[in-house]
Amino acid sequence: MSAFEQLFEVISTQRACRQFSDQPVDDAAIEALLRAATFAPSSENTQPWVFVVIRDAHRRAAAGALIAAIWNRFGREYTRARADDTLFNDVDAGLGQGGVAGAPVLIVVGGDSNLSDRSQLKASVFPAIQNLLLAAGALGLGTCLTTIATLDTDGARELVGLPAHIDPLALIPVGYPRRPLGPPRRDSFATKTHRETYGSGWAAV
Amino acid sequence: MSAFEQLFEVISTQRACRQFSDQPVDDAAIEALLRAATFAPSSENTQPWVFVVIRDAHRRAAAGALIAAIWNRFGREYTRARADDTLFNDVDAGLGQGGVAGAPVLIVVGGDSNLSDRSQLKASVFPAIQNLLLAAGALGLGTCLTTIATLDTDGARELVGLPAHIDPLALIPVGYPRRPLGPPRRDSFATKTHRETYGSGWAAV
Repeated sequence: MSAFEQLFEVISTQRACRQFSDQPVDDAAIEALLRAATFAPSSENTQPWVFVVIRDAHRRAAAGALIAAIWNRFGREYTRARADDTLFNDVDAGLGQGGVAGAPVLIVVGGDSNLSDRSQLKASVFPAIQNLLLAAGALGLGTCLTTIATLDTDGARELVGLPAHIDPLALIPVGYPRRPLGPPRRDSFATKTHRETYGSGWAAV
Repeated sequence: MSAFEQLFEVISTQRACRQFSDQPVDDAAIEALLRAATFAPSSENTQPWVFVVIRDAHRRAAAGALIAAIWNRFGREYTRARADDTLFNDVDAGLGQGGVAGAPVLIVVGGDSNLSDRSQLKASVFPAIQNLLLAAGALGLGTCLTTIATLDTDGARELVGLPAHIDPLALIPVGYPRRPLGPPRRDSFATKTHRETYGSGWAAV
């Protein structure tokens, strides 16, 4: 396979995992994910990403309670009105019923506003998160990109002791999937792409 | 090599390219990048990404003028005060002197606020952008993640006719590098990672 085909195999099989097995994840695997994350591009190469790795059972339970509280307060109703049953039930089990917090490792990802202007933080941190997720997939680990915990900024900061200049941006469970994950469901790029101006579509030329 | 090692080879050699050769980039390559982009995760699987592919020389020149105007207005001074000489000169040549807009293809990436709440748009679009950049690297193409054009929201919308509900989020030049790119310069993940709480560091256990 070409370098592109090898990459595309990892990219095209990425799928959110919200139920994890009890199999532990060792530090070597976590370090591999973090090393991959930190090669991402960032505004002015400021590398404003911050990772806090949670293994402690009490702290994972606290993360689960934080997530469930936000989900119950407004997430469930919002998603119920918008997602299909399959997606809703999967997300509800993950966020409302402890699936995500059941992973052996949780990674809180923050952005350091001392290193990069807040207007640029997400543009500089989410590419690193995607590297981390792809690396996990290549190692057979399940992950899920969640941002719900960061909707309670104070709660997310308190969870891992982030100071005021570090914005919580995501919480990522890492573990081996309890069940095999199916293929992702995605619309064709052609429905999302335009030539020269929006609305032109992407027909073959 | 393992799947992880293959992926890490692509991830760890990604570097911003701001000077391009005249070698054309065909539609098949662009479609490969876009296909990779659209397998990224998104909030509630809403897939709110929008891509507008620019090849027209007049529109590329207009993009270059937009970028240079913003750069000259405040970007140059801001970056001059923060970046080292090597980075500053590279960025100045790319944004202020037409390097980025000299790529044969520019891709404006937007986020559709009808599909995803604006608070979640960047978290749902920048992972797709990173997929696109990695795919380009695997094909030997140079790219650069730029957001400067989107600081003039009206100007960026006008460039490719984005309606008000599509937020411009990035502009990415795509082409073959004029010169080989060196290795990226990144701090060790260990300086960015903590155990359980921020400030704890990542010493081996």
